[in-house]
Amino acid sequence: MLIKNVIVLTMNSNKDIIENGVVVIDNDVIVDIGGNELLSKYPDHEIIDGEEGILVPGFVNAHTHCAMTAFRSLGDDVADRLKRYLFPLEKMLVDKELVSLGSKYGICEMALSGVTTFADMYYYEDEVAKSTKEVGLRGVLGETIVDFVAPDADKAYEGLDYCQWFIDKWKEDELIIPSVAPHAPYTNDTEHLQKALNLAESKDVPILMHIAEMTYESEKYMKEYNLTPVQYLDKIGVLNSRMVGAHLIYVNNEDLRILKEKEVGISHNIGANAKGAHGVAPAYKMYNMNLKLGLGTDGPMSGNTLDIFTQMGLVAKIHKLVNNDRTIFSADQIVEMATLGGARALNLDSKIGSIEIGKKADLVIVETKSINMQPIYDYYSVLVYSANASNVSTVIVNGKVIVKDKALLTQDYSILTNEFKNIKNRVMSAARSL
Amino acid sequence: MLIKNVIVLTMNSNKDIIENGVVVIDNDVIVDIGGNELLSKYPDHEIIDGEEGILVPGFVNAHTHCAMTAFRSLGDDVADRLKRYLFPLEKMLVDKELVSLGSKYGICEMALSGVTTFADMYYYEDEVAKSTKEVGLRGVLGETIVDFVAPDADKAYEGLDYCQWFIDKWKEDELIIPSVAPHAPYTNDTEHLQKALNLAESKDVPILMHIAEMTYESEKYMKEYNLTPVQYLDKIGVLNSRMVGAHLIYVNNEDLRILKEKEVGISHNIGANAKGAHGVAPAYKMYNMNLKLGLGTDGPMSGNTLDIFTQMGLVAKIHKLVNNDRTIFSADQIVEMATLGGARALNLDSKIGSIEIGKKADLVIVETKSINMQPIYDYYSVLVYSANASNVSTVIVNGKVIVKDKALLTQDYSILTNEFKNIKNRVMSAARSL
Repeated sequence: MLIKNVIVLTMNSNKDIIENGVVVIDNDVIVDIGGNELLSKYPDHEIIDGEEGILVPGFVNAHTHCAMTAFRSLGDDVADRLKRYLFPLEKMLVDKELVSLGSKYGICEMALSGVTTFADMYYYEDEVAKSTKEVGLRGVLGETIVDFVAPDADKAYEGLDYCQWFIDKWKEDELIIPSVAPHAPYTNDTEHLQKALNLAESKDVPILMHIAEMTYESEKYMKEYNLTPVQYLDKIGVLNSRMVGAHLIYVNNEDLRILKEKEVGISHNIGANAKGAHGVAPAYKMYNMNLKLGLGTDGPMSGNTLDIFTQMGLVAKIHKLVNNDRTIFSADQIVEMATLGGARALNLDSKIGSIEIGKKADLVIVETKSINMQPIYDYYSVLVYSANASNVSTVIVNGKVIVKDKALLTQDYSILTNEFKNIKNRVMSAARSL
Repeated sequence: MLIKNVIVLTMNSNKDIIENGVVVIDNDVIVDIGGNELLSKYPDHEIIDGEEGILVPGFVNAHTHCAMTAFRSLGDDVADRLKRYLFPLEKMLVDKELVSLGSKYGICEMALSGVTTFADMYYYEDEVAKSTKEVGLRGVLGETIVDFVAPDADKAYEGLDYCQWFIDKWKEDELIIPSVAPHAPYTNDTEHLQKALNLAESKDVPILMHIAEMTYESEKYMKEYNLTPVQYLDKIGVLNSRMVGAHLIYVNNEDLRILKEKEVGISHNIGANAKGAHGVAPAYKMYNMNLKLGLGTDGPMSGNTLDIFTQMGLVAKIHKLVNNDRTIFSADQIVEMATLGGARALNLDSKIGSIEIGKKADLVIVETKSINMQPIYDYYSVLVYSANASNVSTVIVNGKVIVKDKALLTQDYSILTNEFKNIKNRVMSAARSL
């Protein structure tokens, strides 16, 4: 397969841009990159005409709970949402069928928006893995471990057993990276955090966790240990390069030093953090320290959208605003976080995150014909400040075309929309009881 | 004409919502609103099937410089952009043809995104008026007055003469509201600000101005008069109900009191203000004081997008964040600002801004079939947190359908895109010289 007539934003270490570029794919791998001279070099390859679109590495959504599409647009503006609203709602409604439906829908939505790899934490994560396979995305998928009875756990910490089984089931899949996902420090005690890490070590898989997201979380560790959440986690020995921390809002300079030293991956979820009035993680400092920093949407009940364009625009605006400096976080740096940065956060940068020979063919064409996409004086600026999810025209994951002409080839999501309508009354009446 | 099979968000004083609603239009006016019983009452009306979309009053973009699409994606992340980059670029490049092209493109983009009324300040504003008529939008259009030689003025303040001629030319048009637009207090002396107001009074038209946008502006008036910009403008007698102020970031409680007392309209331009690292106007306070408060994009070199969905999402997230309260600015309040609020800011709320019998038929259908639009538990939440400009399917202005099935009926904008390509090298080389 050969993609021609595109502007290639390689996101390699030079951030090389190839106008009127050509990218050649054999099976699941990028084998050549150049200009139109490649057309005669590979005469027998099937040709995809990019029609002057912008070719970027597939976007990485480094933190979500995609099954929560099922609850999207519920309780957006209520106080103390997590404990008073969201946890009870999940207890009432989340079952295997709902996770299957919600995750499939959310993964379709990510695919259509150019997300080719995502990291997810939820319950019944096996259903999320099956949905990921059906749609054809790459997923780092963690079953949640919490200290309370959960939708798929009759007793506290039962998620650890689920993880064992889930990891063994999916370990050899080429698109699924099964993971261990303790929900947060404040919902897991020291013993079980260490057990979770030991499991991840023994199975050689990532560990996903919310870290330093809540003010009450910081207060708890300050009161009990006189430490920040990051310092506490470091002290109990669970921070290393296989840890992917979501949020990391409340971190000080010492915390940042620890995150750097221990090579912790970070998902910066600016949209959900702003909407939740949590605060702004020091992402520009993190970027300049070269931490493993990607962008995430959080679950669609927290952040509503699942695409990375929304996050890129918010990163630019909110960080310029809070740093009182319109020159920080240039558009190319933001596209870098959205692609290679996310890959680094998930320890996948040897395989994905840039358009380079030998990397997996996870590629996205953003069309430039829609009215919001012109004129183009700077390709990165157009992606960060003008584009939205609807501008994605072609998506390739692991060498397979899954979106073409803005249509998803692997699923008919309108069937899922109808299933949402069937459960609407049940969800609404549960929500009203809260 | 009769629109059926829509959820009607009336934005009337009760914020009534009609599910499976019907809206009847005769010529340019809404004549009936109800349910399917209206289908037999108006058997001969042409029917528009809304296909379960959300019908909202046309969005109001209360502040832009739409011709600046011509410079979009240039210099997004540079320091001191206005004086060091933008003003010189305009001096080099802005002529009648560029304003014609840029404004037509920008107005097409607004139309496709569901903006039915916009307020614009620029040079050669007569070209903007002609473009507005060609596309079919409603425009409050002000010719710029500044204290320096401008693209269409050989000497300082020549814009005042242009305004005279421009207002007389368009005063009787049903879609164009010609206006007087002194650029800002710091680019107009006291004498000419008063002349601008006198002209607006004598012609009975609005006056549009940037107010309290820049820190150096506040410093100037504090140093020279020991007043804020708002207090200075009030002191020289130019604040009244025909004034529409853009930005109003740096305002204190006394300023807010003055803005309320003098019934000044306000365009809150959160996206451009954040990207420019200017700060956050106290819009939630303004809203609760019931000021005449709408949303604006600013010019597409400042804010890049021209649609109001982008602004609604940013208003929610940034105000919750800076106020440290996730419950403020509920989604319905934000949709209110985006429609009726903008109409109030422009003194057009007797004609537009809500779906009520007797008001002009400026209406937008937002489709609910796209994957980002489901599920729907709260219509306002979906508009504010999930929708984007690409979800607008039908746009009606003054009773005339100008967008149908997401296509603009009044213009072929691909011709304009090609014209942008023709001037690209000239624009790029001018930009590089700065």
